[in-house]
Amino acid sequence: MATLRVPDVVPPPSEDCERLKEAFKGWGTDEKAIIWVLGHRNASQRKKIRETYQQLYNESLIDQLQSELSGDFGKAVILWTYDPPERDARLANEALKSRKKSITQLQIIVEIACANTPHHLMAVRQAYCSLFDCSLEEDIVSNVPLPVRKVLLGLVSSYRYHKELVDMNIANVEAAKLHDAIEKKHLDHDDVVWILSTRNIFQLKATFECYQQKYESTIYQDINSCGSDILVSLLRIVIWCIDSPEKHFAEVIRASIVGFGTDEDSLTRAIIARAEIDMMKIRAEYLNANKTSLDDAVIGDTSGYYLDFLMTLLGARM
Amino acid sequence: MATLRVPDVVPPPSEDCERLKEAFKGWGTDEKAIIWVLGHRNASQRKKIRETYQQLYNESLIDQLQSELSGDFGKAVILWTYDPPERDARLANEALKSRKKSITQLQIIVEIACANTPHHLMAVRQAYCSLFDCSLEEDIVSNVPLPVRKVLLGLVSSYRYHKELVDMNIANVEAAKLHDAIEKKHLDHDDVVWILSTRNIFQLKATFECYQQKYESTIYQDINSCGSDILVSLLRIVIWCIDSPEKHFAEVIRASIVGFGTDEDSLTRAIIARAEIDMMKIRAEYLNANKTSLDDAVIGDTSGYYLDFLMTLLGARM
Repeated sequence: MATLRVPDVVPPPSEDCERLKEAFKGWGTDEKAIIWVLGHRNASQRKKIRETYQQLYNESLIDQLQSELSGDFGKAVILWTYDPPERDARLANEALKSRKKSITQLQIIVEIACANTPHHLMAVRQAYCSLFDCSLEEDIVSNVPLPVRKVLLGLVSSYRYHKELVDMNIANVEAAKLHDAIEKKHLDHDDVVWILSTRNIFQLKATFECYQQKYESTIYQDINSCGSDILVSLLRIVIWCIDSPEKHFAEVIRASIVGFGTDEDSLTRAIIARAEIDMMKIRAEYLNANKTSLDDAVIGDTSGYYLDFLMTLLGARM
Repeated sequence: MATLRVPDVVPPPSEDCERLKEAFKGWGTDEKAIIWVLGHRNASQRKKIRETYQQLYNESLIDQLQSELSGDFGKAVILWTYDPPERDARLANEALKSRKKSITQLQIIVEIACANTPHHLMAVRQAYCSLFDCSLEEDIVSNVPLPVRKVLLGLVSSYRYHKELVDMNIANVEAAKLHDAIEKKHLDHDDVVWILSTRNIFQLKATFECYQQKYESTIYQDINSCGSDILVSLLRIVIWCIDSPEKHFAEVIRASIVGFGTDEDSLTRAIIARAEIDMMKIRAEYLNANKTSLDDAVIGDTSGYYLDFLMTLLGARM
């Protein structure tokens, strides 16, 4: 359900590197060639291109892109070219170090922890330690105030079981525990943190369904009615990222586009993070929720090479 | 500082496998040959032997050992033959599923989380999911009562930064936080759990040293004076496993030997877990603390092939 389009016959990495090197030559840059190559390669192919580029020219492809490109287009291409765990470690660090730590920043960490495989989350934590000389958890403890800290810390520390295994008994018991905590507006209760951060995704989906059957409203709605503080917003995102990441990312894209101006950072992040995972589903969800196509929305709010690159990742251009 | 003795020239895995196959042949088993081969191979060599054995004879070496060997000797050889993360995942599971979850069982999980590299802990969590169809954290939540649950959960979820990087300012601030929580006998305070489970080992050692300088007693002593419940015992082990694992394991071995009878499971675990890591230091610590040699203690309390195998891992026999 990815939108990324990789050609049937992929050229060897050395040929891709030569094209890129050629695109960097002389004054100016051949942006189209960069989009043509990198915009049609998956994560493991991009990794080989990075490695081959380093071997062939004894310089880092990322450094080269950084010196050749700028603006939103440059940012997007560079994020796309990083290894996904390194990309997410960098995004998490930027979010934690930003002066204003609103939900727009903190949701990035929820996405990494709840809308990805346990293996990816582990790789992000390893990359974080390698890049920033401390653990992701340490930076959460020192940069995020309570009670959000406690929830985020639980989520990023998780290594969930990754196969489909559901115990309806557990779903029943834990739906009741969640309901109890929500009713008491005790959203950072240990039980809430443990359930959301240790149970496997399939189990949690069953628990949420069980919740709705027992209490006649969704857990999302009940959390929503607890108020409007940042913990409420964060937990709503947690529920969506676990239950239907496509809803969350469709909403991230919508929010980045509506109103005056565009939040390019969020738009870029959502498309780059999901182009190889579930962007087809996000597109369908976007259309369903907004009665307008995601592609049209992106076309209406972006321009130039940035637009070309995003549309390439969305599979709308070959 | 390992005691494991690997020969200068190690035979190819296929040759080791032939020797082992030969040792299993006919009635009876050639235990000496098994000790001779497996007792002188490190973890990566044993891995190759397991893989080669499977390829050559289309059967699992572990299964074969299980059908040929028994008693404490059999248990020890099999634990030693597992991949270390799988071994520790199995030990943790056994500890969590045992009816009596005394400190003797729970310390096994502390050892895995605090006396090993962050990489090993991650590998144990992955192995646990593969072997037992749920995460280690889920089994802790459902099998360990509060307040110990909270501390164990924090410890096993950690992925500490792994290089030597110490901030004396943090050491100072966090020594005070730890002291405050200990003084109030609030040993499962969030601050205690976060400090012990997110900070890197070098930082924590500096924090403990800072604690002693500021308050004129060690953190170990102060925790000790909080009473004699299981949380106190557990935190004492956490401090030792972080600060000087050799002290902890010397004590595990001493406790397994003193008094009437021997706790073979603990003795085996300590020697097998550390023969490739720091058994030399543990030996020195044992002599220092008990004024008698660890080797003599093992000789006095064990016999037969079990004794031979342990002494081989202790480097006392070639």
